[in-house]
Amino acid sequence: MRIEAVDFFYVAMPVVTDAGDGSQDALLVRVRAGGHEGWGECEAAPLPTITAFVCPKSHGACKPVRDSVLGQSVEGPADIARMARTISWDSMDLLQAAHTWSGIEMALWDLLGKARGEPVWRLLGYDRAYPKTPYASQLFGDTAEDTRRTCAEQIAAGYRAVKCGWGPFGRGSLQDDIDHLHAAREGLGPDGILLVDAGAIFGEDVEAASARLPALEATNATWYEEPVLGMAYEAYAAIAARSPEVKLAGGEAAHNVFMARHTIDYGKVGYIQIDCGRIGGIGPAKRVADHAIARGITYVNHTFTSNLALSASLQPFAGLEDHRICEFPVATQDVAKAFCATRIMPDAEGLIHVPDAPGLGVAIDPAGIRRYLLDVEIRVGGVTLYTTPSPD
Amino acid sequence: MRIEAVDFFYVAMPVVTDAGDGSQDALLVRVRAGGHEGWGECEAAPLPTITAFVCPKSHGACKPVRDSVLGQSVEGPADIARMARTISWDSMDLLQAAHTWSGIEMALWDLLGKARGEPVWRLLGYDRAYPKTPYASQLFGDTAEDTRRTCAEQIAAGYRAVKCGWGPFGRGSLQDDIDHLHAAREGLGPDGILLVDAGAIFGEDVEAASARLPALEATNATWYEEPVLGMAYEAYAAIAARSPEVKLAGGEAAHNVFMARHTIDYGKVGYIQIDCGRIGGIGPAKRVADHAIARGITYVNHTFTSNLALSASLQPFAGLEDHRICEFPVATQDVAKAFCATRIMPDAEGLIHVPDAPGLGVAIDPAGIRRYLLDVEIRVGGVTLYTTPSPD
Repeated sequence: MRIEAVDFFYVAMPVVTDAGDGSQDALLVRVRAGGHEGWGECEAAPLPTITAFVCPKSHGACKPVRDSVLGQSVEGPADIARMARTISWDSMDLLQAAHTWSGIEMALWDLLGKARGEPVWRLLGYDRAYPKTPYASQLFGDTAEDTRRTCAEQIAAGYRAVKCGWGPFGRGSLQDDIDHLHAAREGLGPDGILLVDAGAIFGEDVEAASARLPALEATNATWYEEPVLGMAYEAYAAIAARSPEVKLAGGEAAHNVFMARHTIDYGKVGYIQIDCGRIGGIGPAKRVADHAIARGITYVNHTFTSNLALSASLQPFAGLEDHRICEFPVATQDVAKAFCATRIMPDAEGLIHVPDAPGLGVAIDPAGIRRYLLDVEIRVGGVTLYTTPSPD
Repeated sequence: MRIEAVDFFYVAMPVVTDAGDGSQDALLVRVRAGGHEGWGECEAAPLPTITAFVCPKSHGACKPVRDSVLGQSVEGPADIARMARTISWDSMDLLQAAHTWSGIEMALWDLLGKARGEPVWRLLGYDRAYPKTPYASQLFGDTAEDTRRTCAEQIAAGYRAVKCGWGPFGRGSLQDDIDHLHAAREGLGPDGILLVDAGAIFGEDVEAASARLPALEATNATWYEEPVLGMAYEAYAAIAARSPEVKLAGGEAAHNVFMARHTIDYGKVGYIQIDCGRIGGIGPAKRVADHAIARGITYVNHTFTSNLALSASLQPFAGLEDHRICEFPVATQDVAKAFCATRIMPDAEGLIHVPDAPGLGVAIDPAGIRRYLLDVEIRVGGVTLYTTPSPD
């Protein structure tokens, strides 16, 4: 199968706000080859990501992603890995290329799975897929009482795990944070899984980040996510050394396997969180999962947009029974729902199952794309490099 | 001074080839504030870099660079650092943002220097600027004899230092590489400074990269650049541990201070090579220079385009007398020369001096921009986000 076309669709809510809600827009990718069609999604700013595909070449190590993809043969996973290697050399100086390739890579796995009638997780070498325990992700409340109440509500709604993050955490006094953590535990009850996300609020300040450890331990938090900046591995390791019970979590911004490996090996996290829409797709994410197993730590998906991206994010660790916690976006904007004709929902026991269907197992609705589609036109030197194609 | 305008100019040779020559195009940035004008240059793929400035917002941590710059006050270095911090939070998920900001940041230093009548290196806190020893950068020859001859030619042309890289190195046998290294030393004579650039040819293969160490030591090479992939810090450190005499060099791709610090602290390089057009500009590069001093290693500029970018690249270590070697592009394409009305040339002793003039000290010729200017037009949802402005 030769790759005949790679098309991008930029969809967005009519109004995009400053909220930290990544589901307000999306960049879908459609790949066509050999009569088959695959879909992927870049977790990225859509316009720069499209231009990294179509831009003119700058020199031998700064070529558009297009040059390494269009016309290529795709018969199996090795072909996808080959294109990834070409891009890593030929687009070495094009920073945005990793985000662009991520969605294409996903689409190629989807296409390959459909062509072979196999789910992607099987193409990755897993014999079966295990259910995951989704966590409800929410902000810390304005008050400790708000935090207690919303945690209790999530448990009542059927979640076994709740992630509290951002909001006032790290912005007030140490005692405020301690109060929020105890309130969260009270709301969850003794058996609820408590995950805490500091949103990198402490920068590189090891002392301030570590001051919260006793309360995290006392409230039996499972992980302490991004206490410091994502690449502050030295600070991560220093905090980890003081925290034998509560493991650190991080890695969502990794845009290559090196960054994820370093978060594990230098930063000493216990949970590595990978976004397939940034790290270069499903193949690199699977390599990170393998590395996590080798190091005895736990892989977790990072995803905050559509069910297509959710399915992709579940594939790399679908076959790992002991890596159970998964991110599951619950309150996405309509734009992220409209183009997915397939819905991934918790079962009666509140567990999430990766689709057992060819490819990523998520059908795309062109009408849903059209509803939120933004027309894009890019011209350079009198030549039109990109116009939004038809989603049909 | 309020930032009134930030304009990008995409210039390119009529034909851009696959050669590893980064001077085939350029992205210039002009910033206007308070009646002053500053110029900078992004070492980056022009089109994705422009779009990272003008693209619509995706969410609170994925905003265009524009939102953190236009309308901001710039009275001193602290204002530039403030904008950098805002971008690091508000454009956290926009990968290309670092490359976009790099050129703007340079232009802001240029503007500030012009407004105060001071060269940038003085604004950075240096009392004086020391001359640098430029190296001539060339490919290894097809044969060892070619390598010998071209090295001898550079010495005859007045260079004290020559960097040989890429070409056949690492692609043939170990003995081939040994022959090239001895030929280079023969061509340079006993006093010439020999720098070797492996162009990451050995991937992550520590054994293959290390097999060249005895010959590098025997030929008295000063550095061994990028023996492995830029982020393969584990491999860097393993090679460095075997090479007490010949220090490693790397870091050119760093797009933030963390990456440069990690190349030093985890990768154990002896020379850290920083491109101001990628790392976020002159301020972050100066922080890397400070870190290099603290670790007892040497800072080197990385630059391969115009004299504007060259001047910017020299500022962060202009005042460091002991950090003498500098990259000096000698065979750039005409597009990189046309827009610089000021030329930086070696003096009678073959040394390079950073301009002792306000700002970056490089006058821009709008006619030279116009000669190679590519008209760009970007439209999203019926709104024109960017059209190429006038360089006048």
